[in-house]
Amino acid sequence: MKVAYLGPNGSFTHAVASKSFSRDELVPMANITEVIKVYEEGSVDYAIVPVENSIEGSVHETLDYLFHRSDITAVAEIIQPIKQQLLAADKNRPIEKILSHPQAIAQGKQYIKMHYPHATIETTASTAYAARYVAEHPEQALAAIAPLQAASTYHLEVVAKNIQEIDENYTRFWVLGKQAPELDLTKETAKMTLALTLPDNLPGALYKALSVFAWRSIDLTKIESRPLKTVLGEYFFIIDLLVSEEKLITYALEELKTVGITTKILGNYQVYHL
Amino acid sequence: MKVAYLGPNGSFTHAVASKSFSRDELVPMANITEVIKVYEEGSVDYAIVPVENSIEGSVHETLDYLFHRSDITAVAEIIQPIKQQLLAADKNRPIEKILSHPQAIAQGKQYIKMHYPHATIETTASTAYAARYVAEHPEQALAAIAPLQAASTYHLEVVAKNIQEIDENYTRFWVLGKQAPELDLTKETAKMTLALTLPDNLPGALYKALSVFAWRSIDLTKIESRPLKTVLGEYFFIIDLLVSEEKLITYALEELKTVGITTKILGNYQVYHL
Repeated sequence: MKVAYLGPNGSFTHAVASKSFSRDELVPMANITEVIKVYEEGSVDYAIVPVENSIEGSVHETLDYLFHRSDITAVAEIIQPIKQQLLAADKNRPIEKILSHPQAIAQGKQYIKMHYPHATIETTASTAYAARYVAEHPEQALAAIAPLQAASTYHLEVVAKNIQEIDENYTRFWVLGKQAPELDLTKETAKMTLALTLPDNLPGALYKALSVFAWRSIDLTKIESRPLKTVLGEYFFIIDLLVSEEKLITYALEELKTVGITTKILGNYQVYHL
Repeated sequence: MKVAYLGPNGSFTHAVASKSFSRDELVPMANITEVIKVYEEGSVDYAIVPVENSIEGSVHETLDYLFHRSDITAVAEIIQPIKQQLLAADKNRPIEKILSHPQAIAQGKQYIKMHYPHATIETTASTAYAARYVAEHPEQALAAIAPLQAASTYHLEVVAKNIQEIDENYTRFWVLGKQAPELDLTKETAKMTLALTLPDNLPGALYKALSVFAWRSIDLTKIESRPLKTVLGEYFFIIDLLVSEEKLITYALEELKTVGITTKILGNYQVYHL
């Protein structure tokens, strides 16, 4: 089987892909839109994309694409804890400059301040790019903040492990596909993600939509409004539900339809933990 | 007066600051946390930070800081339409490489594909950084996608104007301060932003919270759940309200308190349009 993922080699998505589809052919793509497109065209069987990080929030490139332009749904979710490593070409050499994505730099700020107060900080477009740059310039006094996966991909040494400040940092990844894959990972709950478009202005309609779930005791684990990209102030809503009885949700969706609320299922999936 | 903003020179926040506080001393800071911190310390009178982009979504660095660590509130909101320009040191020279922030590249993708199909694309940490790099290497065949403000700041020429794909792209900026500034801009509605922390699991509590606003016909313009950064799956909620009668909102907040829902006011502000 072929599985597309958000590359490059050494990215967090790469770590998820290689742990959950270890016997399959993995195809790195340059950005999220390309990952979804290559799946849409039928060139791969599954596609893995990030959907939410606990610190950065939702990955809108994923959610917006699935809402606006695609009938593809998530068939599995994989939760990965995010751990940042300080990597260098030679761990015994001094470090004068530290490179990484702004978010990873923010996560390692206290560690850097304590151990490398005089290092210059340079932001890069991704953690994997920072790791590759450090690997390509071994003669310079550089280090990168990046995932562990990047150490093996770019033959870097780990100077310090798990330097992130907040331990509760995880990313949700979605596996897009036609049917649920059998993954050899720890199983958690089953969930469903819906996009709701309300017929008119918010207060009444959103309240009604939530009441449809509330009185059936269907647990919401997330709600987020997203601009519809038509007029300023027009939103659609992304809602995550815990699926205990699927029949109850079917009834809820039917009731939403009768009151004029449009629903689109973005995902119906088993949640796994890495 | 001194006004801190998210720099560097030539950024979108710089454009907002120089248009709304044109007679004041503007102080650029390297990142959002630094902007808020310098205001917290009392070194400036106001601070300007981005809070939401219509395409990228909420700026969590701003909202999370105000929720978790600060008693600072927004006293004005400024909405700026985001327009991307293709800038070069000399607009008549060929362009072989185009640099910008990934989001700006995504916004200019169709334009680049049509006019520069063979150009290499390089991502940078910010649009202002891309513009500065292009200015510092005039001998190379480079261009940057960046705001118009960056053209004057870095003495670049505009190769093509407003190349972004989606016209409905705007960013909300917050002015943090002790009292509302008098701004010489187009006035829109008055709004309030609240952070709600619910006493227990969601479905009932969120529904109750929204009913407090719904039955008073208080318009919600935005709702978003954000991880509490304690346990996976624990959220707080950010809600934007239209303020027509402030008394009604006072009553609503009191009612929320009695049912055990904690509210924190992140902003109470007049909305302006650039």
